[in-house]
Amino acid sequence: MSLTEIDTNFTLPAQFYTSKDIFEEELEKIFYSKWIYVACEADLPKPGDYITLKLGTRSFFLQRGQNGEVRGFYNVCRHRGHELLSGERGNRKGISCPYHNWTYDLSGKLLRARGMDADFPKQDYGLNPINVAVIGGLIYVCLNSPAPDDIETVSNLLSPYLAPYQVAKTKIACQKDIIEACNWKLVIENNRECLHCDTNHPELLVPLYSSGFGKGLDKDHIAPSEQRFQDTLQEKEREWEGLGLPYELIEFPDDLWFRTVRLPLANQCLSHTLKPEHACKKLLGNFRKPEGSGLSLWTHPNSWNHFLSDHIITFAVFPLSVDKTLVRTKWLVAADAAEGVDYNLEDLTKVWTQTNLQDQSLAEGTYRGICSGGYLPGPIADEEYLVKQFLSWYTDQLTETPVH
Amino acid sequence: MSLTEIDTNFTLPAQFYTSKDIFEEELEKIFYSKWIYVACEADLPKPGDYITLKLGTRSFFLQRGQNGEVRGFYNVCRHRGHELLSGERGNRKGISCPYHNWTYDLSGKLLRARGMDADFPKQDYGLNPINVAVIGGLIYVCLNSPAPDDIETVSNLLSPYLAPYQVAKTKIACQKDIIEACNWKLVIENNRECLHCDTNHPELLVPLYSSGFGKGLDKDHIAPSEQRFQDTLQEKEREWEGLGLPYELIEFPDDLWFRTVRLPLANQCLSHTLKPEHACKKLLGNFRKPEGSGLSLWTHPNSWNHFLSDHIITFAVFPLSVDKTLVRTKWLVAADAAEGVDYNLEDLTKVWTQTNLQDQSLAEGTYRGICSGGYLPGPIADEEYLVKQFLSWYTDQLTETPVH
Amino acid sequence: MSLTEIDTNFTLPAQFYTSKDIFEEELEKIFYSKWIYVACEADLPKPGDYITLKLGTRSFFLQRGQNGEVRGFYNVCRHRGHELLSGERGNRKGISCPYHNWTYDLSGKLLRARGMDADFPKQDYGLNPINVAVIGGLIYVCLNSPAPDDIETVSNLLSPYLAPYQVAKTKIACQKDIIEACNWKLVIENNRECLHCDTNHPELLVPLYSSGFGKGLDKDHIAPSEQRFQDTLQEKEREWEGLGLPYELIEFPDDLWFRTVRLPLANQCLSHTLKPEHACKKLLGNFRKPEGSGLSLWTHPNSWNHFLSDHIITFAVFPLSVDKTLVRTKWLVAADAAEGVDYNLEDLTKVWTQTNLQDQSLAEGTYRGICSGGYLPGPIADEEYLVKQFLSWYTDQLTETPVH
Repeated sequence: MSLTEIDTNFTLPAQFYTSKDIFEEELEKIFYSKWIYVACEADLPKPGDYITLKLGTRSFFLQRGQNGEVRGFYNVCRHRGHELLSGERGNRKGISCPYHNWTYDLSGKLLRARGMDADFPKQDYGLNPINVAVIGGLIYVCLNSPAPDDIETVSNLLSPYLAPYQVAKTKIACQKDIIEACNWKLVIENNRECLHCDTNHPELLVPLYSSGFGKGLDKDHIAPSEQRFQDTLQEKEREWEGLGLPYELIEFPDDLWFRTVRLPLANQCLSHTLKPEHACKKLLGNFRKPEGSGLSLWTHPNSWNHFLSDHIITFAVFPLSVDKTLVRTKWLVAADAAEGVDYNLEDLTKVWTQTNLQDQSLAEGTYRGICSGGYLPGPIADEEYLVKQFLSWYTDQLTETPVH
Repeated sequence: MSLTEIDTNFTLPAQFYTSKDIFEEELEKIFYSKWIYVACEADLPKPGDYITLKLGTRSFFLQRGQNGEVRGFYNVCRHRGHELLSGERGNRKGISCPYHNWTYDLSGKLLRARGMDADFPKQDYGLNPINVAVIGGLIYVCLNSPAPDDIETVSNLLSPYLAPYQVAKTKIACQKDIIEACNWKLVIENNRECLHCDTNHPELLVPLYSSGFGKGLDKDHIAPSEQRFQDTLQEKEREWEGLGLPYELIEFPDDLWFRTVRLPLANQCLSHTLKPEHACKKLLGNFRKPEGSGLSLWTHPNSWNHFLSDHIITFAVFPLSVDKTLVRTKWLVAADAAEGVDYNLEDLTKVWTQTNLQDQSLAEGTYRGICSGGYLPGPIADEEYLVKQFLSWYTDQLTETPVH
Repeated sequence: MSLTEIDTNFTLPAQFYTSKDIFEEELEKIFYSKWIYVACEADLPKPGDYITLKLGTRSFFLQRGQNGEVRGFYNVCRHRGHELLSGERGNRKGISCPYHNWTYDLSGKLLRARGMDADFPKQDYGLNPINVAVIGGLIYVCLNSPAPDDIETVSNLLSPYLAPYQVAKTKIACQKDIIEACNWKLVIENNRECLHCDTNHPELLVPLYSSGFGKGLDKDHIAPSEQRFQDTLQEKEREWEGLGLPYELIEFPDDLWFRTVRLPLANQCLSHTLKPEHACKKLLGNFRKPEGSGLSLWTHPNSWNHFLSDHIITFAVFPLSVDKTLVRTKWLVAADAAEGVDYNLEDLTKVWTQTNLQDQSLAEGTYRGICSGGYLPGPIADEEYLVKQFLSWYTDQLTETPVH
């Protein structure tokens, strides 16, 4: 089965979800070579703060320098190869290897090479850097070099949408990691359609119109049953104009790898919560009062995000192996919001905690079905058109001539 | 080492027990292409009852239709590939996918394709079926198509032997699964000889003559020590004639894959129990009083069974990986027998629970020895001639031109 | 990357630590083909005593015969391949297979072949032997044949150094196994330098001069800071002459695979303990009073040992997989020493228990760094010259034409 023979009106042939060789190829051509969403500025509030991360088999860390810049380096000493920073997060004024105490500054420069002669060329042994880009507070990395040069265009298009939320001034109220027993693409396919919402996501459908989440915005795809959503949308669009909030759909333009749109919330909701109240009393950024809409952002290959006037939920997908996938969800609130005073953690996280578990069950059940030996690529419904879009983008990446 | 060079007077070269590639070949040429014993009618008493099963990496389910027929389908939806039925067993009037609610009837026909246009060709998207054959209440499947056409001959030969027990009118009193850390062929080799019984199976040798279990029936293989067994056998054969019970040995005729024979029980036993009593007061099928014999049935590649007048023990072997094997044992009693009244579960299951554990230890110890790096194919004794027969059948299957 | 291109002034390219194929090659060319340290005579004090062992995927046992000789055989029966001896250790007058009771004597001769005809050629079915060599109480094996013929030279050179300790008259006071999540070579590299000691091994540096442990003995490598060690050394060498204790450094001569040297202890220590006292009141072999030095012995590919006048610590490294390594440490004391009376187990084992855990953390951290994807071979310091020596020996073994 060659990639060019794949019909992206159907789900992929089984081996694309189950082959270790194809998984390796995906790591190389996508997760190591493209811009990948991995963290946000709230992970690194102060100079010296670091987080350690893994993409595929590669390990690196992000650290905020004394000048405020976020930098990334492979997590390995240039002497005997010991890991430099351990644990998930911490703060270091400098970086000293635990093995033989080689020491680096936060820009990766080797300061001290214990055991080596005075004429040792320290300038040749700085840390091994990775590419880092910050867009409106969201941190993207590209492990291979050169990184794709589309990041500036993406930043220019996205920044006005994200600006009102001032992500850099948030803190992480909660982070939850789930390891799902399935191929990473099933997590993304599941995220790219809401045809499954009606019968699977009772909590999510309190604040969300199922017709608005991934369909119903393309005027060519309006079903009669979506009329209520369309009416609400037009009314809200006038409000958003008044507030200066960008709302127009941008959908994977010119081979770019994101989709964003503002969506009205359903059932008088003001946030992604079960009650028509905001989840955090301290509002984000420019917001003076709770606003009944959410800005949604999907980026290929591995993320989706929802920005509300009182909190943000951001999702990053990390493929661990061909059949294991880490889904990391973060709930961000205003940096000065106090738990128990301004927000209650259970109310804040309820909708997406439940939705994630429901989606995990669906993605894992799909993986088992695909592995059954009797699976055949299945037809993708019109309402699932963003699944087709993802699979089409995906096969394009794999057919591209490898950079390395 | 080519297959044609293998001397089946000896155990196989080590790689046949340890190579993942050969294991894959066995799945393809044997477990997916031959008729395999997997369950019995007592697993599916009522219309709508289903069980889910796995052979190698393939997952499917068996379900009894409204018309009483047992059907099998791969456990996967034709839309986006979600598994259709979860858990080990249950009952469903129809089959509805949990993901987007595509719905099928019990014959596998697609009734409802949610999300698709009215002109969607539902007739092209029925469930993916597997071959199912029921012989005297025992259920065999063949995953690949076409299935070998020998099933009818087997059914004709076997049915008269099984008929007196009326397997379809039994219920499962107990099922026990063991996962053995060894290659599946070692489980079968172990089952095909009783030279190891004397020093390993004290419980089994209460009801069984070790000389009768796999040897001593071939008149060319009678040792002087077997005279007592031979005398008993002749006496019993006259009784069996009177009762109309088939007893003649049928041993892998014309390339067929089964062996069956009736055996007298030892020590006045009336069942496979430790005391000379039946294990269940309600007798099976045609039996009016407990009968001191057992009908044994061995089928290649993966089963053995013992039919007593009061209960049946049936064993199915499922290879999980080259070094892991599931052995599933079921104890069947009359459908209307009541636990605690007609039978006591511990008495009923004692002999084979112990025997299985002893055989597990032997098969696992053999696997460790074969993996030691110092293993050499060893000579098979005359009393182990059914091991040779199995290995000869096995190498024949692997040398056959693949069907697919 | 070909082996001949490797610069052993640097650590190895990543794949040498992470590739399963290279790991298989190492097993074949090194662990199955060279002399490997696996146990000591104290493991088998009496005739019939055995221990079971594993090198790579191969399983064998060592057993002391009635004549006192230590022999080794693959742990597998010549009949159907069952493992012969189970558990870690035990005592057997003869060897009888649990499966069908084939029976061997302690020299591996087949005595009884149950099930076979009278004319069965038992002489052709003895146990499959391995090569065993005992040097001063330390047991080395070579699984493949013929074994390298350098063992006699090694024995002649080493025996005078080991003789004073009479290892054969010791017992095992304690054995501790650690499984480290790293490639085996990182355990050895770590062991071959003490540049990491200052900041990682507070306990070990009580009895040991860091300048003496792997450096400072080569007169070309003396740093000014090592003067105190040099003074002590000269003084102790005069004492050792008087006591008849060999002390001269022998360092991997003529392609041989060991290094030995006597080292003075630091801080008035008399043993590898935290207090300036011996750890066991009963002294070893020829020693009449505690002696403040240790004889150290390193053997490629997998061992290091420290001989004190009151106890011995011996380390054997067993590669389990490319990323998992068993480190087995034994503490030996005089055979007639009594726990609680002559020695306290915690005092005896404290220094190396702590040091092992610290080294485990370093080796595992190095493995994570090497797997980071950003690792580059790093420069080895002069003080780490024995790491270079090991890597040079290692690459030589891999480039040698395979014996088999």
